[in-house]
Amino acid sequence: MKERIIAEVSIVPIGTPTSSLSQYVSACLHVLQKASDIQYQLTAMGTIIEGPLERVLELIQQMHEVPFGMGVQRVVTTIKIDDRRDKLVTIEGKVESVYARR
Amino acid sequence: MKERIIAEVSIVPIGTPTSSLSQYVSACLHVLQKASDIQYQLTAMGTIIEGPLERVLELIQQMHEVPFGMGVQRVVTTIKIDDRRDKLVTIEGKVESVYARR
Amino acid sequence: MKERIIAEVSIVPIGTPTSSLSQYVSACLHVLQKASDIQYQLTAMGTIIEGPLERVLELIQQMHEVPFGMGVQRVVTTIKIDDRRDKLVTIEGKVESVYARR
Amino acid sequence: MKERIIAEVSIVPIGTPTSSLSQYVSACLHVLQKASDIQYQLTAMGTIIEGPLERVLELIQQMHEVPFGMGVQRVVTTIKIDDRRDKLVTIEGKVESVYARR
Repeated sequence: MKERIIAEVSIVPIGTPTSSLSQYVSACLHVLQKASDIQYQLTAMGTIIEGPLERVLELIQQMHEVPFGMGVQRVVTTIKIDDRRDKLVTIEGKVESVYARR
Repeated sequence: MKERIIAEVSIVPIGTPTSSLSQYVSACLHVLQKASDIQYQLTAMGTIIEGPLERVLELIQQMHEVPFGMGVQRVVTTIKIDDRRDKLVTIEGKVESVYARR
Repeated sequence: MKERIIAEVSIVPIGTPTSSLSQYVSACLHVLQKASDIQYQLTAMGTIIEGPLERVLELIQQMHEVPFGMGVQRVVTTIKIDDRRDKLVTIEGKVESVYARR
Repeated sequence: MKERIIAEVSIVPIGTPTSSLSQYVSACLHVLQKASDIQYQLTAMGTIIEGPLERVLELIQQMHEVPFGMGVQRVVTTIKIDDRRDKLVTIEGKVESVYARR
């Protein structure tokens, strides 16, 4: 089974001119839009990515670089990886398995 | 302006019989279903909650207790709070503000 | 047994004049220095707090307010709670139990 | 300037026989003990690592594999990266810069 993980990433630039971060989030998302081999979902608190672990981490590193290219001097990036190897999981499947319990 | 924050919570029971956690997530969600004064969204990586800070933390404490009531001896709960006071933000509004940048 | 949890908190102000955050971290720590009923440890990546869950969350809410009082408009606060009820754990004890495995 | 970041990693195996995780943490730490090119510090809530970003992520991937090799079927790994490029930061330096504010 080709291993796929689900990760959530949040990229927070520090020392930005205002408290709005949407332009940075939007620019980071461009990295994922160009990656046709993974699935992703933008939420209010981060971006959820589904794909092979190595590939997801490679893309997150590219996303992490984006704010530096926009003039930011410090970036705090948080990554949470959910790696389950006894069952194939997907972004939709995880949510459905919770609702199926009702 | 009545202050509302957006938070994300992830409740992870340790030492469960199997690697499936959906029954615990489902039981934790019941706490939010009974709370008509907040908004929430279940994602593949956590639950996003929108409401007043004090109230959201109160509900999260109730959610955190749920796995103990199901026989679990250890729970690791992660909470991320995004509190913006120059602008009213909502779960939908935050996602839309990113897509509006395209 | 009076329940004590170990938590880690990280308070990140957004839209600060520079990328240095040490003045905000220092001001947040004052909240803990005045609290004689809990234990805490500052690390390079956050502050670890040991005490009863309700009390720790109360103090974290006070810490979370501090940057707003310093002119910040947005604060992202991350809290991780490790709550183990089959054994009394302490900040030092958790680290020692790992090294005891060597 | 050779870029060094500070990261914190927490590796949580799901579905373990008991609620004690110290044997897994200890085994994950062996990966860092063999890596002479980075600095690390074990805390009660995770492991803090200082080194080049690419290298730190490579080591974290190795650490993330360890519980699977011990029979675990699911691992939740959280990584927080603090990457500051206007100033050289170290694990000790970050803590000292906060206390210097007193």
